Amino acid sequence: MEFKQGDRVRIEKNGTVYEGRVMPSMEGYITIKMDNGYNAGFSTDRVKITLLEGNGESTNGGENSAKESRETGEEVTKPGKKLPKVAILSTGGTIASKVDYRTGAVTSQFTADDILAAIPELKEIADFKGRVISSILSENMDVGAWEKLASAVVEEIKDGADGIIITHGTDTMMYTAAALSFMIETPVPIVLVGSQRSADRPSSDSAMNAICAARVAVSDIAEVSVVMHGTTSDDYCEIHRGTKVRKMHTSRRDAFKSINSLPIGTVDYNTGEIKTFTNYIKRGERPLKFKPGMEPKCALVKFTPDADPDILDYYIRGGYRGLVLEGTGLGHVSTKWVPLIQKATDSKIPVVVTSQCLNGRVCDRVYNTGRDMLKAGAIEGEDTLPETALVKLMWVLGQTDEYNEAISMLRENLSGEITECCFK
Amino acid sequence: MEFKQGDRVRIEKNGTVYEGRVMPSMEGYITIKMDNGYNAGFSTDRVKITLLEGNGESTNGGENSAKESRETGEEVTKPGKKLPKVAILSTGGTIASKVDYRTGAVTSQFTADDILAAIPELKEIADFKGRVISSILSENMDVGAWEKLASAVVEEIKDGADGIIITHGTDTMMYTAAALSFMIETPVPIVLVGSQRSADRPSSDSAMNAICAARVAVSDIAEVSVVMHGTTSDDYCEIHRGTKVRKMHTSRRDAFKSINSLPIGTVDYNTGEIKTFTNYIKRGERPLKFKPGMEPKCALVKFTPDADPDILDYYIRGGYRGLVLEGTGLGHVSTKWVPLIQKATDSKIPVVVTSQCLNGRVCDRVYNTGRDMLKAGAIEGEDTLPETALVKLMWVLGQTDEYNEAISMLRENLSGEITECCFK
Repeated sequence: MEFKQGDRVRIEKNGTVYEGRVMPSMEGYITIKMDNGYNAGFSTDRVKITLLEGNGESTNGGENSAKESRETGEEVTKPGKKLPKVAILSTGGTIASKVDYRTGAVTSQFTADDILAAIPELKEIADFKGRVISSILSENMDVGAWEKLASAVVEEIKDGADGIIITHGTDTMMYTAAALSFMIETPVPIVLVGSQRSADRPSSDSAMNAICAARVAVSDIAEVSVVMHGTTSDDYCEIHRGTKVRKMHTSRRDAFKSINSLPIGTVDYNTGEIKTFTNYIKRGERPLKFKPGMEPKCALVKFTPDADPDILDYYIRGGYRGLVLEGTGLGHVSTKWVPLIQKATDSKIPVVVTSQCLNGRVCDRVYNTGRDMLKAGAIEGEDTLPETALVKLMWVLGQTDEYNEAISMLRENLSGEITECCFK
Repeated sequence: MEFKQGDRVRIEKNGTVYEGRVMPSMEGYITIKMDNGYNAGFSTDRVKITLLEGNGESTNGGENSAKESRETGEEVTKPGKKLPKVAILSTGGTIASKVDYRTGAVTSQFTADDILAAIPELKEIADFKGRVISSILSENMDVGAWEKLASAVVEEIKDGADGIIITHGTDTMMYTAAALSFMIETPVPIVLVGSQRSADRPSSDSAMNAICAARVAVSDIAEVSVVMHGTTSDDYCEIHRGTKVRKMHTSRRDAFKSINSLPIGTVDYNTGEIKTFTNYIKRGERPLKFKPGMEPKCALVKFTPDADPDILDYYIRGGYRGLVLEGTGLGHVSTKWVPLIQKATDSKIPVVVTSQCLNGRVCDRVYNTGRDMLKAGAIEGEDTLPETALVKLMWVLGQTDEYNEAISMLRENLSGEITECCFK
């Protein structure tokens, strides 16, 4: 018997009974979302499956294509109540992944429609439309993909979306979130969400993350944010500002942390309640403004002891337009690097200093090395994350060719990336 | 009137009275260590100073020289009890720093003798001898300085030291700790210690860190460790394994954290009690073994989205002998980097993959990109920190010219840098 996505089924395996709704599954396998929010996957020839409730929608039968797919949720559960409109833009990644039987590894192949079918609760929160922007693993995201995604977000907002959800691989989600933060001034929430476990694994976090993301998308938090598990339990998600978030664990569900800032807030998984901890820009507070244009020829250079300063010259020779240094401590590199910083700034290549400590603020005024770096023209990145500093530099150099204008933009807090100084 | 280091004085300023012992001070200034453990500095022409107890030792009057200086603590407080012998090797850094009036910034200029004079409690813990190894800020540490320091440590152990304290700038302390961990198998504790605030600042953490380091130096923990404040209060220090520690804040006193491991233990500042949380190698458990030799031509490359893979070719062309990648998530770089990984390994250049998440374990077997990286010859760094992985690579390539031997050493846990896998 064939089961369709969304069908409610009972599965018996070795005397244990599992009940839930059918998720997108590979041939020969069935994955269900159980009532506790977890997913479980089974080989169909080893279990007994019984249909409990056949309200599933038809699967699209085969590989997803990158065609645009439209709203699927006709059956809004509360007729009479007009739900906000949310666009789900999918870019690939674990939240939309399945096992590739060519290699046995996981690839990203699901569409927003698949996610809506797999997580029926979403339809109670908003009136969704799905749209596939790309289908790549996040380590392959690039400046072109950021700009394509930003354009699509802007189109959807112009088209009346009350909120945007972007499904994204977690590996480079922080870089994409930063890129959108600089490119778009938004009147509505733009929420990036992903999963640390693929949807076919029992401990998948996809459903909870997606549901919390939807709550934020219909909230009044008109910022670019990342919404992911706040703890290893399924209790709440954290809402991280797009310029202050970092993936701090390779595999834990609560891998994402706000650095040098509290999260904007949390979303309770059970009640949907949002609590906020920081100031944020409110829905409708500012008009939509799209400022695309990024310079890809920028590099992040992590300093390590005894590293040859020629690496800076390599980038200068290569026509790079900006450099971010990830220095030690308060923002230091060895003194033999200082002449190369001077060479870069003499060539009108901005050099922004950040710290490999990640936490805390760069301050190059305390020690001689830092002072020499400043004298050579380096700019302190303050408490900006190294990764965000790189994306900011790319964006700033995409906005202006004037070195001095770039320098003054780099010193400014443009999108929450620098918090006001509390300690020097 | 001239005051000497160790003199007990009363200082009156604007009606407030401060009492404490004179620390090494700059001309025109007086710095005292107060009874609460904090230091305070004053301009001598703005305060009234009264000598309370003149048991100070003579200051060495002027710039310190790099000459070797011997034991100063004749006045051992508990006659009859033989104290363990501890060598304090100073390399520079904040724990041994003062303000440079040329630039107004802080440089490192104090000797071990100065530290002993400033922190009289140390003499109750051990019988110290001081020795200046170098006097540089830690961002200028290099492979040569690591080897010089390691040689001095080994000499002191051979000479009968029951423990070693190394005062070090905090910026690159983790790299030096890792280097010593690989170069020396030690029968006695080797403790690195520093300060996040210079000794002339009221909130200096020098004294507590130095006292806790001394407790560890006379303990049975025969490992290379970093001993620094465990919290922002002056309650206890943490003892971090040299291969598992990272500076995680630019300025906080409790900047050092064990990553992917508990600290070895803690030292209570008040009682001196040591509690341990992990297994550790005990005093005398293994004989002294010195394995110097490090290959400086190794690089740590941090991957960022859209980064040009030519950076790998730059290092291959430049005759580099090993590369550490700091990838995203479980240890990924973009697929366009994979052919360059292949080129490196074809040229017998080991490529070790670590994660910019820092926490968690690299696993390149889950996603296609990782599998392709492994196929190209990359080695998973498991849960090794990127910085430790670089130092390990330098050391391994200093030990062997055989590619296959290097690869198998890189896969092994050599000095606590890899913890046994608990989750994949």
